[in-house]
Amino acid sequence: MSTPHRRADIMMPSRLPSGFAAATAKVGIRSGAGDDLLLLVADRPCAAAAVFTRNRFAAAPITRSRRHLATSGGVARALLLNAGCANAATGDRGDRDAASSVRSVADAVGCPVEQVLVNSTGVIGRPLPIRSMIAAIPRLAQATRVDHVDATARAIMTTDSAPKAVERTVPAANGGVIRIVGVAKGSGMVHPDLATMIGLVLTDAEVETTTLADLLRDSADRSFNRLSVDGDTSTNDSVFALASGAAGAAADPNAFADAVRSACLELARMIVADGEGASRVLEVEVTSAATSEEAREVARTVGGSLLVRTAVAGGDPNWGRIIAAIGRTSARFEPDRIRVEANLVPLFADGGPVADLDHAAARAFASERVQIRIDLDAGDARDTHLTCDLTAEYVRINADYTT
Amino acid sequence: MSTPHRRADIMMPSRLPSGFAAATAKVGIRSGAGDDLLLLVADRPCAAAAVFTRNRFAAAPITRSRRHLATSGGVARALLLNAGCANAATGDRGDRDAASSVRSVADAVGCPVEQVLVNSTGVIGRPLPIRSMIAAIPRLAQATRVDHVDATARAIMTTDSAPKAVERTVPAANGGVIRIVGVAKGSGMVHPDLATMIGLVLTDAEVETTTLADLLRDSADRSFNRLSVDGDTSTNDSVFALASGAAGAAADPNAFADAVRSACLELARMIVADGEGASRVLEVEVTSAATSEEAREVARTVGGSLLVRTAVAGGDPNWGRIIAAIGRTSARFEPDRIRVEANLVPLFADGGPVADLDHAAARAFASERVQIRIDLDAGDARDTHLTCDLTAEYVRINADYTT
Repeated sequence: MSTPHRRADIMMPSRLPSGFAAATAKVGIRSGAGDDLLLLVADRPCAAAAVFTRNRFAAAPITRSRRHLATSGGVARALLLNAGCANAATGDRGDRDAASSVRSVADAVGCPVEQVLVNSTGVIGRPLPIRSMIAAIPRLAQATRVDHVDATARAIMTTDSAPKAVERTVPAANGGVIRIVGVAKGSGMVHPDLATMIGLVLTDAEVETTTLADLLRDSADRSFNRLSVDGDTSTNDSVFALASGAAGAAADPNAFADAVRSACLELARMIVADGEGASRVLEVEVTSAATSEEAREVARTVGGSLLVRTAVAGGDPNWGRIIAAIGRTSARFEPDRIRVEANLVPLFADGGPVADLDHAAARAFASERVQIRIDLDAGDARDTHLTCDLTAEYVRINADYTT
Repeated sequence: MSTPHRRADIMMPSRLPSGFAAATAKVGIRSGAGDDLLLLVADRPCAAAAVFTRNRFAAAPITRSRRHLATSGGVARALLLNAGCANAATGDRGDRDAASSVRSVADAVGCPVEQVLVNSTGVIGRPLPIRSMIAAIPRLAQATRVDHVDATARAIMTTDSAPKAVERTVPAANGGVIRIVGVAKGSGMVHPDLATMIGLVLTDAEVETTTLADLLRDSADRSFNRLSVDGDTSTNDSVFALASGAAGAAADPNAFADAVRSACLELARMIVADGEGASRVLEVEVTSAATSEEAREVARTVGGSLLVRTAVAGGDPNWGRIIAAIGRTSARFEPDRIRVEANLVPLFADGGPVADLDHAAARAFASERVQIRIDLDAGDARDTHLTCDLTAEYVRINADYTT
């Protein structure tokens, strides 16, 4: 596990953007130490947007949040998140629990119930300890603080080894500064089309709801939807965006969009680097594909290959597995025109291995970041897929998660 | 590793079907002990058929065997197989090596070159030690034996922990007995549409080439194409069928087809049980799907889920992962009408967990064979997918395969 030393050099922002405050508590939803319930409150109603899992067993809180956003027209005052229990596949009781938790938040904050968003992450198929949660909510609403980014990030962790938060600033139209703070949890079940990852993008900019929703969808598609840890998709994936407008101004639209995209991409990289059991980051870049879809298919197939990922775990330059993964896609290419390289070391060209580079190839596969570039020589499209190596530690973590 | 004791109670046939003989040698293609080159020779030209990998980086010997079957019209006298080197992604040299090896066999056996089939299995991107191989071939052709099934199965092993062979007999039309002997290697890179598995179905029945080809395709689709170990597809997968006709009679067509299908299914089960690092067999049966395609998609998605397979490795009844995997398929179903059970223990029904069965569920997930049944309540179609659990041992094997 090499993640702790990687985390140490990342600056964790301390203050939430203006207009937001948060509180956390230990309610006993998740076993072990640390808070497991988060209440985020905005001073005033915010522009709100979200992207949710496409899994058809979407959890009760996902269904409820989706409905609230539709009813409110994209306005929110509060967000309740918990770790340790997903409240998914919990039947009617799960729906009732999600409903009573948001009602309790609405009462404590003093807002319409449809302005409360909610999500859960953790084990599927178990009920929430709803009485303890509801008992904690009024206390949380009284205890919110603005310098609470670290606690916010920690309260939603499951098997994450470290909290994940990033900050971006852009100039405001009124001469001030717009802040964007992103928070995420990831680690397991992470895959394109989202998986148990939760992301939170908070800003004090003035933004229209529709603009925020479009930007969030685009940013998530370029970041969280381009990574995988184990190829599964969870019942609870979600990324929320809230804009308080407390800065009293908008940002330059292009600078703001770049900053949100960049924050999401950095969070996605943090998630991959902290993938369960990960020791190396693997980045698969496909260039010169005939179409974007084909570029994406090749990047995902190679990045999702267990054999490629175990080879990277072993620092083993078994690049034949990359070739085999490319070969089972439907992308158009001529086998003898493909070029494959790892950290700029050519591995495969002209239909065969590139000779005399065994030592360089071994060094590339043993790096902390292995960047595989595949040139299909079939067009102009490109795509990138982010993942991590697959280690024995991953299996140990996942073989014994509920028990 | 529980495979050795499982293997002990399986009867290994000793004699090849009439009309076949085989010889093996240690040429040093694969590191470690044991023979790594197999030459199988038929007394006379045989009806021959094969199914090959769909990977577009199909290895040089696959391309050659495909061409020979087309040129000969489905007639073969000899088959050359080696373990330790796949002769895949080896460029022009790979083509030349495959060509010179079959030429050498044709000379030694005394048959047209197009009656020689060839395949290789092992590391991709490395050249064969072709001189040593060609030097060994005349000796092999002189040393063939009929009681050589065990040696045949061992000479093609890579990370297999045990040789795999089965036998079936059916009555012949002339009052005698038709024998079918199946041999396979599997273990890694095993997946639907084949992966590095090699299968060999030998019989002394009189069979038309077209009948044999149709039967082989159908049998492979019901067996080898319904299993996975790691979801990758190899450059060298193949199943060969050869019918010597030495029994001097045909078998009853239905009994013969059943016997070939049954032999392939037993070989497929052996491959899964001996999946790299496997401690448990996982069988996912989907019933009441709207279409066969949807049944297959659900069975493959659940059977291919790393989270489901690691849960099974841990004997951990985390059935929520099964639900999450079903939820990311495109199959039609109503979430609250699906039923999921493991070894007949109901886990999920009416949109939520089945209460008070935690101990029974834990026992089911800790069994040597975990049979998950998913009833979609959406139609009449069904399918089954065979796989094994994903263990830390799998990662250890695959993290250090070439080096």
